[in-house]
Amino acid sequence: MRLSTLQFLTFLTITNLPTCTPSTNPTPNPTQRQLQNRSKTFSIGIVLFPGYEPLDVIGPFEIFQSLSTYYPMTISFIASTTGPIPSRPPPIILSPGQPPTTTDHIISMSLLATHTFSTAPKLDILLIPGGLGNMALVQQNDTTIESFITSRYGRLKYLLSVCSGSVVLARSGVLKRKKATTNKGHWRWITQFGEGIRWVPSARWTRDGKIWTSSGVAAGMDMTYAFLEMLYGAQGGLTNVMNGIEYAPHTDPDWDPFSVVWNVPGADPQGSVESCVKPIGW
Amino acid sequence: MRLSTLQFLTFLTITNLPTCTPSTNPTPNPTQRQLQNRSKTFSIGIVLFPGYEPLDVIGPFEIFQSLSTYYPMTISFIASTTGPIPSRPPPIILSPGQPPTTTDHIISMSLLATHTFSTAPKLDILLIPGGLGNMALVQQNDTTIESFITSRYGRLKYLLSVCSGSVVLARSGVLKRKKATTNKGHWRWITQFGEGIRWVPSARWTRDGKIWTSSGVAAGMDMTYAFLEMLYGAQGGLTNVMNGIEYAPHTDPDWDPFSVVWNVPGADPQGSVESCVKPIGW
Repeated sequence: MRLSTLQFLTFLTITNLPTCTPSTNPTPNPTQRQLQNRSKTFSIGIVLFPGYEPLDVIGPFEIFQSLSTYYPMTISFIASTTGPIPSRPPPIILSPGQPPTTTDHIISMSLLATHTFSTAPKLDILLIPGGLGNMALVQQNDTTIESFITSRYGRLKYLLSVCSGSVVLARSGVLKRKKATTNKGHWRWITQFGEGIRWVPSARWTRDGKIWTSSGVAAGMDMTYAFLEMLYGAQGGLTNVMNGIEYAPHTDPDWDPFSVVWNVPGADPQGSVESCVKPIGW
Repeated sequence: MRLSTLQFLTFLTITNLPTCTPSTNPTPNPTQRQLQNRSKTFSIGIVLFPGYEPLDVIGPFEIFQSLSTYYPMTISFIASTTGPIPSRPPPIILSPGQPPTTTDHIISMSLLATHTFSTAPKLDILLIPGGLGNMALVQQNDTTIESFITSRYGRLKYLLSVCSGSVVLARSGVLKRKKATTNKGHWRWITQFGEGIRWVPSARWTRDGKIWTSSGVAAGMDMTYAFLEMLYGAQGGLTNVMNGIEYAPHTDPDWDPFSVVWNVPGADPQGSVESCVKPIGW
């Protein structure tokens, strides 16, 4: 017997746990398409590489995993090899002619890659995280992920990047003539890549067609909420998930004080530094 | 050559990346003790078990890892066995007499445990995450983590729990006569455990002596910021980290609209539903 939403709500009642108070600001009814999406099994892939930023990966993944108790989906963690992939970045060259700096003092986690770029299944949604590992791959002239993106792009329904993961999208060519944003602390380094990209200096996230890109790290969670709200509608599963994980997302894609904090050229100086958030549906 | 703060700032200059704009609301100078802490190597342990909540672990870990580029620290991921530990919860009994429900449809990640409870090193800071796995351990009458906590508690400098990780603290006895909070969606189930605990119904996190407990999932990041601000001071490393990961934390430990959303008995009905956040130092 699968742990279904109905069973879980029954469990809440039996164990005398509280059920959700009706919200005071209910979310809209799902559209026909969103209702259909709720029955589809979306195949999600997340790429890993040494030096991925942990929260770039797990912020979105937390929301996906929680939502998988409501709507069917599959996950693949895709890397050059299967097995443990460390979050500690490899040594990076900081200035030309210098030897790479060591990064041993940076603590690390290891997340298991379940597929290689060759064995990854058909994917509907592909997410590329950021991290200093992007910089290492560029310095190693490694374009494996770029090649994976160009080979899969046509059949993807959606392509998402978090933080400096946009570097990979830029180098793959898929961002040509499209809007995109990225991590604001490394803006200049990142935006040198690619051609004809309409980089948006002040954006928590952007959407252009099937490509969604977010600002740095924590912005991935806000983008993921907006993306899943587009896909499924907020009412029901997604609202319960966001309130279950007690995350009140930033819902304005233009809120980006970090573009001001990090002095991004073209950042909106009039943009609001502050954002007021509350539980979804309240 | 270690990647140090000075080198990284030099890198930003050489590669024409922006350096941080002076903040308009500077954080206080660190205290003497905080300055001393910046030179200490704190040994951090995070416990894992099948069915940990990913963001309970990685929200705090992201901040620790980023800060490790500034201040020395070590990390141990501690579980019953080393190797991959899945985030998918084991089957759980939803009602007495029923067989356990399957959880195969819940997507999963696997994080590597680096130590067992026997091999874990001396720890200064221990963090216990939540997740449906806590419920499975209780149903299995597994008190391994509780025993680990009681054996280490005296020598820990700090003990932290995120979300339903407080169940373990409650069952271990260390919360007796102490304030604590927990995940609000499962409040009644969790707060049946332990004796003499001063459960706080509306709290993003609590602190009582060396024990810090947070509300559900995402609240772990807010607690972690407050904890590290206490330990090191915000000025310098921690501010750069929070703005680098573009997370504007909730800094009021009493803000807890989720206690109202989830109908927690004793929740503060006058509490603010909304929280306004901005970059640290702004």
